Amino acid sequence: MSATVIENIGLLATPMGFAARSDREQGEIRLLQDAYLCYEDGVITAVGTGKAPAVDQRIDAQSKLVTPGLIDPHTHLVFGGWRQHELAMKLKGVSYLEILAAGGGILSTVKKTRAASMEELADKAEKELRKMLRLGVTTCECKSGYGLSTEEELKMLRTVELLRSRQPVELVSTFMAAHALPQEYAEDREGYIRLIIDEMLPKVAQEHLAEFCDVFCETGVFTPEECRRILVAAQGLGLAAKCHSDEIDPIGGTEMAGSIGAVSCEHLIRCQKSGIQAMKAGGTVACLLPATSFYLGATFAPAREMIDAGVPVAFGSDFNPGSCPCSNLPLAMNIGCYRYRMTPEECLTAVTLNAAAAIHRAEKLGSLEVGKQADVLIWDAFDLDYVFYRFGDSLADTVIKNGVVVYTQH
Amino acid sequence: MSATVIENIGLLATPMGFAARSDREQGEIRLLQDAYLCYEDGVITAVGTGKAPAVDQRIDAQSKLVTPGLIDPHTHLVFGGWRQHELAMKLKGVSYLEILAAGGGILSTVKKTRAASMEELADKAEKELRKMLRLGVTTCECKSGYGLSTEEELKMLRTVELLRSRQPVELVSTFMAAHALPQEYAEDREGYIRLIIDEMLPKVAQEHLAEFCDVFCETGVFTPEECRRILVAAQGLGLAAKCHSDEIDPIGGTEMAGSIGAVSCEHLIRCQKSGIQAMKAGGTVACLLPATSFYLGATFAPAREMIDAGVPVAFGSDFNPGSCPCSNLPLAMNIGCYRYRMTPEECLTAVTLNAAAAIHRAEKLGSLEVGKQADVLIWDAFDLDYVFYRFGDSLADTVIKNGVVVYTQH
Repeated sequence: MSATVIENIGLLATPMGFAARSDREQGEIRLLQDAYLCYEDGVITAVGTGKAPAVDQRIDAQSKLVTPGLIDPHTHLVFGGWRQHELAMKLKGVSYLEILAAGGGILSTVKKTRAASMEELADKAEKELRKMLRLGVTTCECKSGYGLSTEEELKMLRTVELLRSRQPVELVSTFMAAHALPQEYAEDREGYIRLIIDEMLPKVAQEHLAEFCDVFCETGVFTPEECRRILVAAQGLGLAAKCHSDEIDPIGGTEMAGSIGAVSCEHLIRCQKSGIQAMKAGGTVACLLPATSFYLGATFAPAREMIDAGVPVAFGSDFNPGSCPCSNLPLAMNIGCYRYRMTPEECLTAVTLNAAAAIHRAEKLGSLEVGKQADVLIWDAFDLDYVFYRFGDSLADTVIKNGVVVYTQH
Repeated sequence: MSATVIENIGLLATPMGFAARSDREQGEIRLLQDAYLCYEDGVITAVGTGKAPAVDQRIDAQSKLVTPGLIDPHTHLVFGGWRQHELAMKLKGVSYLEILAAGGGILSTVKKTRAASMEELADKAEKELRKMLRLGVTTCECKSGYGLSTEEELKMLRTVELLRSRQPVELVSTFMAAHALPQEYAEDREGYIRLIIDEMLPKVAQEHLAEFCDVFCETGVFTPEECRRILVAAQGLGLAAKCHSDEIDPIGGTEMAGSIGAVSCEHLIRCQKSGIQAMKAGGTVACLLPATSFYLGATFAPAREMIDAGVPVAFGSDFNPGSCPCSNLPLAMNIGCYRYRMTPEECLTAVTLNAAAAIHRAEKLGSLEVGKQADVLIWDAFDLDYVFYRFGDSLADTVIKNGVVVYTQH
């Protein structure tokens, strides 16, 4: 592949470094005016200002804003069916228990996911990925967790494999059988945990179907001790740990996750000081999901306390059919900006470098620096403030993944 | 123009009638499965179920959801510049007074609007209208109010005239010189009010540049009595009255507006029982602006109390460069649905028939009935709940304005 230069960049905005940024660093980004960026074979070879080098391929950024491609570090991308009628029922005053009794809730998604073929699941997810791409998302984490049996969890992870060959968004797989207790094990929690540890995890590791293992640590789902056992087993097989914690009740999941060096904790709406300290000690990224708080009308996570304590903050979309049926990461960025009162600079880091760190990609993705992969987003905007101001708009002008233009408005 | 049929409609959803719907009617919509809709010369000629009539032109709705085209009854579409840096300053803790001292606020938009040519204003607004069209908006109200002198207010209204010839969204003009007190009249409130009544309004009426007159009734802006004088003068010249009231303080604007039979009141965040009663008595539509409450982190208007009292509720985007830099009406619909706890059916009426009533178009627009204009939206959705569940997505599949396909995804 020949060398390419993106020239006539009005403003280049990027966090810097090869690890998550925390504390005041979260908002300390590099801003270059009248800049250019060169890459070759998908790798950035130069970033500078002034006259761009003369190379074969030229992309004119038309004085626009350029940032790293966006990274969504938390989605439940693959699932069967939707649950739109639950929203309408809730709005009409139907209780959660009545919705469950009517066949709703997560187990209804499990049923529909099991009933779908890999091809059907992939077609549905691909449609969503193409929307995400047009919004500037170049990398997306995907969790399993609607299969809840060995075969069905593997089917979900293999669907992600299939999707890799079909579209350009880079996909990162997380195994999350500990998302809910399946009905078959309703009376045998220990049996399901043993199934995960003794059967599922070894197969996932052997077939290299996931890089991460996530668990749902919550009242009525899995306890911190159950989650710890699963995550430590996963770590022993080479999978890094993630933990859904403090979404509803602060039962100690974040503290446990920090203590075992989890790469990220997710949600963190009710995170306490002890959880923040544990994440700091564990080198754990706080992966916040602002669109979920918005959709549920819930509290927002204490983002500022985390930043002040030196915990790196990332944002994910949390796209899923129950608590956040929205795959629009830029909208999640806007919600995070307004409700966490984080600055545009802090939010940019949250969806680039810190999101990369949450999926162990900070050495390769998440900033525009020599040696990193050329995942670049040209915005239909001239400064960073504008991106966070124009909520609800689609401002991706051109999306470049690994040095290839994969979407353009023109 | 030959007859056209939209066939294979999975679900047709529409409010019914030729006037605003209130009380329980707000959520009583007509739902037809396996439906068709015929139109000729831009006018709906038949709506039914079962086998569609054989006519020349056929549009296959592919089993999707069909509703009336969306109507945005409240925008400040035409303006110069943007104010993205005010958001960033606020997030960094800069106070509103400091922002004003730094040249921010509404008067900075007035300055930029005055400095722009009609052509420049039209180009900028047209870009936004084309985005709105792709989201399913077929009619849009536009307010003046960043000119604040006779010449500049007329320039804004003439810009709307120019835009009518350039793109397919139907535009409805509102004269709103009483949006702020211009700096030239800072020491002479009465002089500015006289200028509006004696000079601007007669010219606007004579040149048929607006159908409505709006005023900003708020602490520090215009008093209810000042607003009443302006609106009554406007009514005398044939312009219908609208009133921005109860956005920040409930100072009696809604009560005044109801008493003079205003067609709509806008914002209504702090609306009291007396205001609701006045709207009911005045036949006034409550035009709520959920995206503005969201952006500002403000309270949400008491929508349910209004509906229960028999006041018809409409939603607008409030697109403007200060308090709501978002022209995405479907997103405003979603925010309204979640935060007002209004059902999908109630929200549909809010952006179709009741929005039409807020701009005196309920006899012609806002529902899919024989005799009404063929403004039709085919959604990339199969039921109404889905539209309100998938927030942040662009679900317009095909947009038909006055019988012409003006946008399609295909």
